[in-house]
Amino acid sequence: MMAQKQIVLGALDCFAPGFLAQGMWAHPADRTGDFNSLSYWTDYARLLERGLFDMLFLADTIGVYDVYGGSRDPALRLGVQVPINDPFVLIAALAGATSNLGLAATGNLLYEPPYLFARRLSTLDHLTGGRVGWNIVTGILASGARAFGRDLMGHDDRYDFGDEFMEIVYRLWEHSWEDGAVVQDRERPMFTDPDKVHQVAYAGRHLKMSGIHLTAPSPQRTPLLFQAGASGRGKQFAARHAECMFVNGTSRASLSRAVADMHRALAEQGRTPDQVRILAGLTVIVGETRAHARDKQEAFKAAASAEATLVHASGGLGIDLSRYPYDSEIEYSETDANRTLMDNLTRQPDGSRITIRQVAEKMSLSSRNMLIVGDAQTVADEMIAVVAETGIDGFNLARVLMPDSLEDFVRLVVPRLQEKGAYKAAYRSGTLREKLGLGDGARLAANHYGRHAGEEAVASI
Amino acid sequence: MMAQKQIVLGALDCFAPGFLAQGMWAHPADRTGDFNSLSYWTDYARLLERGLFDMLFLADTIGVYDVYGGSRDPALRLGVQVPINDPFVLIAALAGATSNLGLAATGNLLYEPPYLFARRLSTLDHLTGGRVGWNIVTGILASGARAFGRDLMGHDDRYDFGDEFMEIVYRLWEHSWEDGAVVQDRERPMFTDPDKVHQVAYAGRHLKMSGIHLTAPSPQRTPLLFQAGASGRGKQFAARHAECMFVNGTSRASLSRAVADMHRALAEQGRTPDQVRILAGLTVIVGETRAHARDKQEAFKAAASAEATLVHASGGLGIDLSRYPYDSEIEYSETDANRTLMDNLTRQPDGSRITIRQVAEKMSLSSRNMLIVGDAQTVADEMIAVVAETGIDGFNLARVLMPDSLEDFVRLVVPRLQEKGAYKAAYRSGTLREKLGLGDGARLAANHYGRHAGEEAVASI
Repeated sequence: MMAQKQIVLGALDCFAPGFLAQGMWAHPADRTGDFNSLSYWTDYARLLERGLFDMLFLADTIGVYDVYGGSRDPALRLGVQVPINDPFVLIAALAGATSNLGLAATGNLLYEPPYLFARRLSTLDHLTGGRVGWNIVTGILASGARAFGRDLMGHDDRYDFGDEFMEIVYRLWEHSWEDGAVVQDRERPMFTDPDKVHQVAYAGRHLKMSGIHLTAPSPQRTPLLFQAGASGRGKQFAARHAECMFVNGTSRASLSRAVADMHRALAEQGRTPDQVRILAGLTVIVGETRAHARDKQEAFKAAASAEATLVHASGGLGIDLSRYPYDSEIEYSETDANRTLMDNLTRQPDGSRITIRQVAEKMSLSSRNMLIVGDAQTVADEMIAVVAETGIDGFNLARVLMPDSLEDFVRLVVPRLQEKGAYKAAYRSGTLREKLGLGDGARLAANHYGRHAGEEAVASI
Repeated sequence: MMAQKQIVLGALDCFAPGFLAQGMWAHPADRTGDFNSLSYWTDYARLLERGLFDMLFLADTIGVYDVYGGSRDPALRLGVQVPINDPFVLIAALAGATSNLGLAATGNLLYEPPYLFARRLSTLDHLTGGRVGWNIVTGILASGARAFGRDLMGHDDRYDFGDEFMEIVYRLWEHSWEDGAVVQDRERPMFTDPDKVHQVAYAGRHLKMSGIHLTAPSPQRTPLLFQAGASGRGKQFAARHAECMFVNGTSRASLSRAVADMHRALAEQGRTPDQVRILAGLTVIVGETRAHARDKQEAFKAAASAEATLVHASGGLGIDLSRYPYDSEIEYSETDANRTLMDNLTRQPDGSRITIRQVAEKMSLSSRNMLIVGDAQTVADEMIAVVAETGIDGFNLARVLMPDSLEDFVRLVVPRLQEKGAYKAAYRSGTLREKLGLGDGARLAANHYGRHAGEEAVASI
């Protein structure tokens, strides 16, 4: 048998009651309401390790989905990613409960002081033995910015700010402490060789700092970097920084386009496709038989909340979907600035339009992710085919019902993928970056932007 | 036997190689060099739970002790609290490894965005089941401020800033979510009752924000609050906010003065001594016999680093002690602004002066803490007598050799304290605040400033 591409697999979730399948917390069998307890998450993480998942990936939102109807009340009432806790605290709490699982979370760089953020991530990388990832985001919610007494920066400005933030954290992670700086020589005595520790100084338009990194180099130094930029400026940012990229798409065609886009953007940064892993969001409903899976899907659809789906979609789009007719085709006013985005939302492959109700129904279980429904054989075959055809490297799996969705997947689909040689039979050793075959050993690849960003500036101080 | 006051006991340490007994990491039996590994800390925390310690308390320093000789090199070379990792990450990692131990850490409010800091602490309180404490500090190192592109604020300004920070976090923790706001009613469905969640808005001289708290109420809501203000403004801040206070003093007389001072400051805030626990820093060297303990002390003294002690003391005082003669009595210039502080450092009870060398020797194992050396009987008796005479409620124990100092204490001293009825035989149930008998159930006491700070402002939005 020809050696087959091994599918990379993450579990995508957030530290909140509702994630993508909106309203499922209200399903009688769902445990998501226990999300504040540590045992909920240690059970979750251990299940993922049984299934050899590469990582648990925790999305995060600073702010509330308050665009729909101009009110935060529906998000609160329906549990749409609120309350939402600090995902990096959870990663730390899972360090001791797991030994191979990658632990990645979204960190919004608009609101974090880079000096402390860099230390926090280095500390996490130490305590997890190099299993930490950071999904770089720059925020979309105005309510988030207001929580810091600010207005939300413009889209491209946010990425400019992000560039400055990255310059600082790269210098701290990669260049402040040389390899071998920590000596721990009890005889001399010398804990750290001061000649191998360097001041980092940065003064940009938005950010300014001066200091040494407070933490000695962690196994990966820079945590594994994730990004999901979809705009032009976002793709450029992702192509420079990301080692894992998220793409959304409900069809093979849209995923193929997203992959081709990303590969072009990578080439512009002098990087090759094998230096990143592209993961597509995926929702799976698997049953013992196809009929069983379809029955589950219908039951889930009935349990899901259309209103909560629109609350979530409105926040993501920045468009109040309650302002459009629910059950009839949308007629746009001349001045509707959202027309293009709304067209994207409602246009079907055949050119026809669907209503807001139909949008809600379509997105209710899987949001903007691909949805695969079937028996284990069907699901495994489809996953393998999507990878082969679109050029993605794997999936970020978002559960519908917790923990049933993941238990079913681990029990039914994982063995099929393994039989087909499309999924690992055991974890590889090393850090998260090494397990994914990325980078220069445990460190950023030699040609990664961050590996050398500001190196000369640091050396000259 | 008359019911005796139960001694409160914390272990005081930091997430770094060196803490107070400077240079001990170089001792052949010391394990502190493993501080980056999770198992080092889970072993540590479990040892403390065997000894029924009330808490592990992690000090923190943002910045480097670079006052001595005007250079950070000695601190790096001698491992004086550098490298230093994020203590809140460690608390999270210890949540699952412990079940009763309080987990407290220093958080410097000058550099943390209050909105995210409040969420982080609430998340920790959830995952630990209400065992989190926060030591409020406002920083002393200019190198810390520079790491954020700022100059260190003046002393009193730092406390004014701190007052604003506290106003925000109290509103988020105490008033944004009413009790019972989280309904989790699957029938309606209603996850959160929006009418019971309130906007927090604050606009001060330094800080501004508007938003709901992102986290639902945690067991303690406000984490247990620690403070160690020693200046006039610092004492006032501590008397308003702190539920546990740290005092330093090498003698019973100085501890008695510190307690009396604190009680006066508390009274000015309308609080009574039973509403706080005052803990004194303590270093214990215990042996099977007194002679054994004294031998240990001599061996530790020989291993400790005088230079590292002065590096640490210089940073704490803000005075470069390398500028004074090492081995002869100090003669001050007319213009020496540090004369008063230096007098405090070198003056003996009999009015004589000691040299910088003697200062270093005196501080090398216990810094500014009380030091007790002896067999278990002596140590236990002395601890009980100090509590009875000075009015403190207990101690924060700083180890010399790790883990030997703590293992010896748990094995030898704890049983003696228990025999004498001066120490608990088992943990009390409940949150950290409840275990210490503070507060209104798990919450801040009804007359605590934070319980009602900004309550009306929040309700009116």
